[in-house]
Amino acid sequence: MVRYKAVIAYDGTRYSGFQTQGESLTVQLVLEDTLKKLNGGKPVYVHASGRTDAGVHAWGQVIHFDLPQERDAEKFRHAFDTQSPEDIAVRSVEQVADTFHSRYLATEKTYHYRLDIGRPRVPFKRHYAAFYPYTGDLDVERMQRAMEDLIGTHDFTPFCATGSSVEDRVRTIFEARVEENKETQELLFIFRGTGFLYKMVRILVGTLMKIGQNKLPEDAFKLAIDQQSKDYIGPTAHPEGLYLMEVRYDGKPKKAYQEESSN
Amino acid sequence: MVRYKAVIAYDGTRYSGFQTQGESLTVQLVLEDTLKKLNGGKPVYVHASGRTDAGVHAWGQVIHFDLPQERDAEKFRHAFDTQSPEDIAVRSVEQVADTFHSRYLATEKTYHYRLDIGRPRVPFKRHYAAFYPYTGDLDVERMQRAMEDLIGTHDFTPFCATGSSVEDRVRTIFEARVEENKETQELLFIFRGTGFLYKMVRILVGTLMKIGQNKLPEDAFKLAIDQQSKDYIGPTAHPEGLYLMEVRYDGKPKKAYQEESSN
Repeated sequence: MVRYKAVIAYDGTRYSGFQTQGESLTVQLVLEDTLKKLNGGKPVYVHASGRTDAGVHAWGQVIHFDLPQERDAEKFRHAFDTQSPEDIAVRSVEQVADTFHSRYLATEKTYHYRLDIGRPRVPFKRHYAAFYPYTGDLDVERMQRAMEDLIGTHDFTPFCATGSSVEDRVRTIFEARVEENKETQELLFIFRGTGFLYKMVRILVGTLMKIGQNKLPEDAFKLAIDQQSKDYIGPTAHPEGLYLMEVRYDGKPKKAYQEESSN
Repeated sequence: MVRYKAVIAYDGTRYSGFQTQGESLTVQLVLEDTLKKLNGGKPVYVHASGRTDAGVHAWGQVIHFDLPQERDAEKFRHAFDTQSPEDIAVRSVEQVADTFHSRYLATEKTYHYRLDIGRPRVPFKRHYAAFYPYTGDLDVERMQRAMEDLIGTHDFTPFCATGSSVEDRVRTIFEARVEENKETQELLFIFRGTGFLYKMVRILVGTLMKIGQNKLPEDAFKLAIDQQSKDYIGPTAHPEGLYLMEVRYDGKPKKAYQEESSN
């Protein structure tokens, strides 16, 4: 038994998310089908760093899987990439220790969120950025100031969608900022931290839109955290703007066997 | 009868091209359906600056159509845009003289072609840039030098796909250049001229790939034009990289009633 780690990019548009559930078409199902073919018809189980929801994209999703014997990593990557559908790319494959685990040993995740604030819609990016549907300008500087309250270690329970069974909702955010691209008329939100709760990034972005519209106070994040209250929380932003960009495995891992988050 | 000009952007991925042919789903069909709804159920015929082929995109396609009475142009644009599917955007609508004609009066067209030369594929752009499928580097400077032979007024018959009934194949190219974007790992080809023959831009790009691979001489364009020979012509590049960016209507129009080109 030899363990492999792979970095996968996918366009989430036509998938019911990463993780297999019932009969739905999922990224996991497609990856496992492809690996089965490359493994002489024998099933291969794929573990990922975390789930992504329907419509959410990944540039740097990390998976691991076991094969019965050693393979040339680059040849295997090429075959895995070529045999995958066009909306999935296998960016890298490397052999890792048997103890490697894509979920339990992840120490840091980076998400990007693309918000299209141009008028009218650019049809080419309707699946790759969320369209900001409101009139009136967003106060980008106000959003940036609000995001500074996210930095640090906090109990993010108010930002966790209902239906999650995660018990420990304390996460550390290292980076939270927004960049405006005048040329593409987009806002790019960048979040980097030890992990994110169920739908947390999209709830953060939905809240930021309200802050940018002056419909929530500039210290909404601080108030929500301090009071552990959902009163300062905006709606969940659409999935098509969200990208899992990078998962890192350095330093001390987060608590083992913590339930994976999903965004 | 009041004539309107509109600038339309569309994602060509799911369409069998612009122009209605038989039962296929076309951009024209969808635009006419929407305009019919906005015209109290009475049919509206759409004329475009030219056809685009299946999978080809437009940022600046120009159409004209007639309505029985005057409408507020911006309100009409908003309704036309909102009632159109998500892969079509109505960028502008303006009232024009009854003599305006989107095809016959066009004086200049600009096409862009996006070629993805990165490895591995970026799944998010598979419908929006053509993937360069060969190994080995493209000599971008050689392609740029070759493109200089396209500038000017030439008989482009060798670059016209068979099946076209256009008789006058003389066109003037004002601009032909290639830009390399190291960050996105893409080449962007820019072509601006009085008009382009059937599939001409895609044949130019296919030929440029061969020139960049050193499989055709650097003066392939000059040789093809001088000898009126298809011997120096590469394959037709894929449609998904091609964008009709802009159509202009200033200066002296090209010869009236010339058959429209299609790319």
